[in-house]
Amino acid sequence: MSRTEAGGAVGSTLFPTGLHAVNVGLAGFAEPPRAHGATVLQLDWRPPAGADRDLGLLVARLDDDLAEPGVADQVGRRVADANAIAVARILAARPVLVDVRPAGEVIPFLAGDGRALLHSGPPIEWARMCGPMQGAAIGAVLFEGWASSADDARALLDEGDVRFAPCHEHRVVGPMAGLVAPSMPVVVVENADRANRAYATLNEGLGKVLRFGAYDETVLARLAWMRDVLGPALGQVLRREGPVDLKALTAQALQMGDEGHNRNAAGTSLFARTVAPWLVRHVDREAAAAVLDFLRANDHFFLNLSMAAAKSTMDAAADIETSTVVVAMARNGVDFGIRLSGTADEWFTTPVGVPDGLYFPGYGPGDANPDLGDSSITETAGIGGFAMAAAPAIVRFVGGSAEDALGYTREMGRITLAQNPAFGIPSLGFAGTPTAIDARRVVESGVAPVINTGIAHREAGIGQIGAGIARAPLACFTGALVELAERLGVGRAAVPRGGAA
Amino acid sequence: MSRTEAGGAVGSTLFPTGLHAVNVGLAGFAEPPRAHGATVLQLDWRPPAGADRDLGLLVARLDDDLAEPGVADQVGRRVADANAIAVARILAARPVLVDVRPAGEVIPFLAGDGRALLHSGPPIEWARMCGPMQGAAIGAVLFEGWASSADDARALLDEGDVRFAPCHEHRVVGPMAGLVAPSMPVVVVENADRANRAYATLNEGLGKVLRFGAYDETVLARLAWMRDVLGPALGQVLRREGPVDLKALTAQALQMGDEGHNRNAAGTSLFARTVAPWLVRHVDREAAAAVLDFLRANDHFFLNLSMAAAKSTMDAAADIETSTVVVAMARNGVDFGIRLSGTADEWFTTPVGVPDGLYFPGYGPGDANPDLGDSSITETAGIGGFAMAAAPAIVRFVGGSAEDALGYTREMGRITLAQNPAFGIPSLGFAGTPTAIDARRVVESGVAPVINTGIAHREAGIGQIGAGIARAPLACFTGALVELAERLGVGRAAVPRGGAA
Repeated sequence: MSRTEAGGAVGSTLFPTGLHAVNVGLAGFAEPPRAHGATVLQLDWRPPAGADRDLGLLVARLDDDLAEPGVADQVGRRVADANAIAVARILAARPVLVDVRPAGEVIPFLAGDGRALLHSGPPIEWARMCGPMQGAAIGAVLFEGWASSADDARALLDEGDVRFAPCHEHRVVGPMAGLVAPSMPVVVVENADRANRAYATLNEGLGKVLRFGAYDETVLARLAWMRDVLGPALGQVLRREGPVDLKALTAQALQMGDEGHNRNAAGTSLFARTVAPWLVRHVDREAAAAVLDFLRANDHFFLNLSMAAAKSTMDAAADIETSTVVVAMARNGVDFGIRLSGTADEWFTTPVGVPDGLYFPGYGPGDANPDLGDSSITETAGIGGFAMAAAPAIVRFVGGSAEDALGYTREMGRITLAQNPAFGIPSLGFAGTPTAIDARRVVESGVAPVINTGIAHREAGIGQIGAGIARAPLACFTGALVELAERLGVGRAAVPRGGAA
Repeated sequence: MSRTEAGGAVGSTLFPTGLHAVNVGLAGFAEPPRAHGATVLQLDWRPPAGADRDLGLLVARLDDDLAEPGVADQVGRRVADANAIAVARILAARPVLVDVRPAGEVIPFLAGDGRALLHSGPPIEWARMCGPMQGAAIGAVLFEGWASSADDARALLDEGDVRFAPCHEHRVVGPMAGLVAPSMPVVVVENADRANRAYATLNEGLGKVLRFGAYDETVLARLAWMRDVLGPALGQVLRREGPVDLKALTAQALQMGDEGHNRNAAGTSLFARTVAPWLVRHVDREAAAAVLDFLRANDHFFLNLSMAAAKSTMDAAADIETSTVVVAMARNGVDFGIRLSGTADEWFTTPVGVPDGLYFPGYGPGDANPDLGDSSITETAGIGGFAMAAAPAIVRFVGGSAEDALGYTREMGRITLAQNPAFGIPSLGFAGTPTAIDARRVVESGVAPVINTGIAHREAGIGQIGAGIARAPLACFTGALVELAERLGVGRAAVPRGGAA
């Protein structure tokens, strides 16, 4: 944030003790005096709320530090109280993996007679979906046997014969395209602190997979094996020997180079080590061996457990009136959407961009789909990109340096309300991960939440082509905060334009 | 290494541009000018070879940078060439785990008719052994059925009825007391680069265990299970499905918070994930489940694999005439000993101290045995304490801060000849671990190799009471270097006292 340089010859007669300056804001102004040898302290400062005076006042009114008489003052205090409850619930959450079940058995939206699918991100209709999501939807239709060819599946979808809803609106999270169909197995995660449940599909591994929009025979065959062998085997051992404490596994994994989103080698290894003896005891030999082979080969298996754990954590903090805590950030490949605790089920959306990242050989930014998936629930819960300092090796996957990794975690401290003591980061002296994004701090500082993400090809059926770092668009946070302020009677309309505050 | 402070008011008339000083050596001399506001650059400098002029000259003659005519010059070049070979062999080593076998089947010293045991560290006879090693020897005698009570075992040992030898002299390494008896299973590690093999016992876990000198019924029952179930099961699957590439596992583990000596959670998890499907396929259900339970509960299982891998690596660099590379550092709880590549089988020993560390509740330094075990082969091979930067979480176990962890790795760069590109440390920009200790650099700099270690109770039968950080005593390195120099005709006697070099 600041930089000092030793003073030199400048002003040795005019200023016998040397010339010292403080420069605030644009770094360019520091250069002329520095070039003449002066000591210049550079402060990295930006005007609050992007220099939008009304917005700045709105944030101040939602803050608990603005001592105004009357309603605004009370609003600030109510927001602070609501946020304290949200933070307490997030820190107290204790997600445990209790079962693996067919989605149609545990998610009412998928349980009916009609054809229904869930997708990632904020709401979107079939026609507007991006290539990878359409590809995944075609694959899901084929997988469910609702059509027998990709063309038939597309026709069925064009006719509107399949109902869609966002995962997030049904206590579910899905990586990338996030397609969840009734017969897919989902992990059942319970937040033991408040008994709320969350669900996610099982991770398919890398390469050609449904979540990146691929739907060929190999993809469908793997999904069938997951439905027939993997899901039942895991469900069986979890019901007999579980639950598995996902908070404890995540805490360990964060001390082992994972950040719980794009790097999951430790979490996957710890999970495999946990369930291996259970599988041997309770599942037939062929199935147990096949499941352990799959866990051995897929370093990302823990991602979906991490996501469901994060979802159960953040759902516990949802729907607290007047809270400015962000409880969901999600992308559908077209729009980025967030949900605020204090605005319940409402989505605040804006078009989403392509992440900065590293591409697999033969691909580049021109091939990339805009950012996609519910996996940013991990960042919403204070891990993933927020815990990059725990995972310096990830820069090989998403780009940047080990120092950048530390910097991202430190920077996220500016927009969060707490550090999670359960998730200590060794390289930061075991400081907890920055947790509970406050939309006020995002809007005021202009610091956008960082998100580690995979990059999908923009066309259906191809798959992953890279991985990188994205930033949540500020417009979502501004929109959410303005809406909350309106509801509380301290919105833009309440701000006297040009008058004294 | 250096520190700058901004100049202030001092000398503003006498020295218009401020007073600047460089202080070399004792930091105290920098304080008076600094107190008057001067800029002082402090250099952390110590006189070479502890200010021992003869020793300094001896090191210089073994160095390749002393341009003297005649024999000394050639010696320097021969040392450099030999060290280049040693470094190349260390970096090229590729240890793979090929089998687990009863020690008596693969270690000739233990195969004969007489009673024979191996122990850790340099040679030591029964009467001089420390408490934990005597306890472990009693346990080993009971385990082999050579006596039926601890008293009988002690009497047998007092009578000299058991032959002892150091593990290191038989291609073996043993943690702590390092007792290896004929019927104990040992891992068989082959360095695929040169086909040399190394062996180590299987790790028993923490708590009351033989290697810390405990020998009660629970200890002996576990050893029996390891002999009857664990060893045969692992041997069987390794022969059918192996080998396991230990270099690759170690490289991954170093990116997952392990340092390969006192922190092995990642290595153990990766190993368990690797062998789990093999165990399911080839071992009966009860045994497979029991083995996987054991691997699940013992985060240190990988330590002994890491040690055997390091031993096979360093043995490849042993016996290179004129090389000053250290190929073994080991403790027997009484003496610390090292072996140099250029002095073959000779040990250079000195009494060993108690490590600095963190103690389990109820124990303190007064209870501790001096440092013990062959596990410092990991540091000798460039991991363990040398790779602490990879494992910041370890400071919770051995003391210190995350910055200390970085500092140890950087400091070890001063006394090593290479960085191992296979073992990149994420937090240091993927720089390789400092590898191949050069005894010349140790003696010249006075920087002693750092060793992560467990702390045993000084009495037999109690076990581990803490963990911490030790430093290898400089005297061993001086002794080794002087001996090598004598053999090469450039020893102390060759240095003209008081004359020109």
